[in-house]
This record gives sequence, structure tokens and C-alpha cells, in this order.
Amino acid sequence: MSDQLRPAGAAEQLDREAPVPLHAQVSEQIRARIMSGEWPPHYRLRSEPELAVDLGISRGTLRRALSTLIRDGLLVQVRGRGTFVTSTAIEPSIAQKLTTLSEDFARQGVAVSTQVISHELISAPSPVAALLDLRPGQSVLRLERIRSLSPGPVARLVNYVRVDLAPGLERADLTDRSLFGLLENEYGLKISTGRRTFTATAASGATAAALEVPESFPLLYLEQITYLDDGRPIEYSDVWIHSERMRVTSLLSRR
Amino acid sequence: MSDQLRPAGAAEQLDREAPVPLHAQVSEQIRARIMSGEWPPHYRLRSEPELAVDLGISRGTLRRALSTLIRDGLLVQVRGRGTFVTSTAIEPSIAQKLTTLSEDFARQGVAVSTQVISHELISAPSPVAALLDLRPGQSVLRLERIRSLSPGPVARLVNYVRVDLAPGLERADLTDRSLFGLLENEYGLKISTGRRTFTATAASGATAAALEVPESFPLLYLEQITYLDDGRPIEYSDVWIHSERMRVTSLLSRR
Repeated sequence: MSDQLRPAGAAEQLDREAPVPLHAQVSEQIRARIMSGEWPPHYRLRSEPELAVDLGISRGTLRRALSTLIRDGLLVQVRGRGTFVTSTAIEPSIAQKLTTLSEDFARQGVAVSTQVISHELISAPSPVAALLDLRPGQSVLRLERIRSLSPGPVARLVNYVRVDLAPGLERADLTDRSLFGLLENEYGLKISTGRRTFTATAASGATAAALEVPESFPLLYLEQITYLDDGRPIEYSDVWIHSERMRVTSLLSRR
Repeated sequence: MSDQLRPAGAAEQLDREAPVPLHAQVSEQIRARIMSGEWPPHYRLRSEPELAVDLGISRGTLRRALSTLIRDGLLVQVRGRGTFVTSTAIEPSIAQKLTTLSEDFARQGVAVSTQVISHELISAPSPVAALLDLRPGQSVLRLERIRSLSPGPVARLVNYVRVDLAPGLERADLTDRSLFGLLENEYGLKISTGRRTFTATAASGATAAALEVPESFPLLYLEQITYLDDGRPIEYSDVWIHSERMRVTSLLSRR
């Protein structure tokens, strides 16, 4: 057992005579550690019995202190793994699973708003046509959207979707719907695999304006090709992400 | 069957009377499509029978043309999936699997050089100490390295490793070895899971200098925590990636 908490003297600072209840003093101390960065995002707290002994308080008092911080969104408990400092950033797992941003947001209970900037049939531009296995000039749906969270816009998405495989998609309302969900549920397409590539890029032009950042602001840039189960490509997209507002996370296993 | 090749008139341009053999004319045409971006990286060529019919050549001639381009590294054949235009960028799968850059490079047969910039025991800085479950001030190995490919430096890595779990690691030579390999093979540690977060950041100071880019150049920034099978954290690292020279790719499945 390490004595990680002792050097900072948390236990000594508790005032058992003060009018502020002990659990509130403990939750304020933990809050200060989180805010100062001493306990950074993803830091795993020691077990409740260990923490209670270190702080010289009962487990009941500790639990009340922790529940305040959980309610405030500073801590999160994961069954079987422990109590963690939450990340201040939204962290979609789009590098790890073939989910979409809207699916990730929905799963995490994050309120997101979507603005459809344009939604039109165009003649497939040359590299997109090749990646989607279309003839140059064949019709494709170009869908441009901005996704925003409460701090502001987090992603500019430009999707190119094969309308020969999803006829009428140009008339669907994609404001509040997942594109993948629509393709799977309305068109019965079986989305199977995807390739996503992540690079860093400097914001410019329409992207800088859409994400409300200055020119040259560093953005995460995601290029994606999605395939159906029969191997046909269904969709290509360019996504620019404001990664200070939304960090891309992968939980990985060694084997 | 689409007639994707016809609009560009590839077949018409073949000169059966020319002194240049037909297979060489075909490989030059395909090379031009790749170089022009008409067939972008990851583009899947149509099947050999279809391509041969479209070009009006025998499958033997087509195979000779393709084998030239495979030998030159412009195309790659994946068993059961087809023939693809190779990516010009190195694409480690560090967003997808808990591998290290050196393991990925080795698997892809990419020649990489590593420069160890510093390799020393330090007193664990506060957020790193918390993430590694150490007391503030406890000793940790700080390892700083630059990885380079032929176009130049591609990543600056700063690892913090728990030497209480790997005693003597500060004396190991890490110039040509994988850190994970060393921990697993020499110390018998079972590396199990990891969390990696990807953001975009502006190059500055030591990182800009190490990667030979101007200040503010957009870089991919990876933060990683690695855990052993018993749940103890073993390593934390900061990695800055020149993503024009090395793109991070994930191949994902929907289910």
C-alpha cells in the first residue's frame, strides 16, 4: 500500500470541529486535487477502504464525499475497475470502433446539435469516385454538417455517399439522425468495415469558419472509407475535429 | 460491371505496333493514374478479369503490368481482398492495437532509426506520478527518443516508466529495442491494456526542433497510459507525430 495521500497532508487538514461537515471537507479537498491537475483525467483513485484509512474517516463519510463529486461529474465509477477522474473532454471512440460521432454522443448521453450545411447530389469528384468505385462524374450525395457541443462546434463533416446503393437519400432529413443508422435501418445495408486515418492539419477557409477557430489552428483530420459486407464501398468522408473540445481515445488490448 | 476505365480511354491509347511492349504501356498508364491521384491511396482495383476485358488485353499481359507496379511498391495484393493502391505514407496501427511504433515499423519492414536524447531517473512530476500510481517525488525513468524514417524525423517520444517494477531499466540500451519488448521479455511484465488519446497540437520548442518543423506546424499528439494485467500502470508517454510523414490508421469493424 503506498502512502500517496500523505505527503500532501490531506488528513491533517480536516477540521472535525468546523461547522462544515467532514464529507464536504473531503469532497472539497478531492475537488482541489482534480482542479490543480494533481489528480489528472483518467487517474484511478485508490480503493475506498485504503482511501478511508488514509484520510482517517469512515467509509460512509468517504462515500458521501465521492457521491458529491460523481454527481458533479468530476469522478466516474466503472464497475469492477474503480473510481476515476473524468476527462473534461468528450472522448469518442471513433479510432477504436466503427461508430459514428452521433452514436458515440448518444451512448455517452452527450447533448449534441447538428447543422446541415448542404445536402445535394453532385458529380463525384475524381479521387472520391475512385474510392467509392464509381465512374468519374457519376452522381453521389455530398452531405456537409457541423456538430456542436455546449462549448461550441466540434466537428465539420463532409460525407460522400453512394446514392446508387441508397436511392432517395438526398431527400432524407439528416439533422438529428445517424447516417449509418439510416443506411442500415432504412436501406437494409450491412455496414461492415472501415478505414480511418488520423492526421493533424492547419484550419483554413470554410473549416476554420465552421469550427470558429483562427486560420492555422491545429485540427485533427480524419479520412474515412466505409465498406459494406459484400466489400462494396458505401461512403467516403472528410472530418475536421476541434480536438481541444473533443479528444479521440482508444482503449486497446495487447493481445 | 461499371465502365470506370473507359472514359479515360485507357484501352484506346495502347499502341500494339509500338516497340514498347504492351505490358509496359499498361503499367505506365496505371502508374500515371496513381501519380495523378485519379487512383488514390487505398483505391481497390477492379478484378483482373474485368480489368483485362476493359483494357482489351490478356490476363497474362495484365499480370505482368501489375507485377511491375507491385515490385515498385505502387500496388499491393491482399489475399482474398484484391489489389490496392499503396499509401505513400507509413501508417502504423497504433490507434487500433496496443503495439509500439518500433513494432509496427518492424512488421511493415520499414527502416527506422532511433536516437536516444535522454535516459535518466527523475523525480516523478505531479500528474505523471498520479497516473502511474506513484508518490509525488518517487523515482521514474524518463526516456526521450526521436524516431526517424528516410524522409526525416517522424516522432518525438517521451516515456515515463515505473522503475520500481523494472529495476535497472535506466541502464538498458533502448536505441534499437522496443520498450514494450524489453519490459515483457527481460522483466517478465505482462502488458495488458492501454489508453491512447489523440489530439492535434501546434509544434513548439523542443518538439519543433526535434521534428525539424517550424513553430506552430500542426502535429498529432498522443497521450498514452499502459497497464499490466494486474491493473497496475507501468508507463505513461507523450508522443508528438509528424503526421504528414506518418499517418495513424485504424481498420475497424462494425460489430
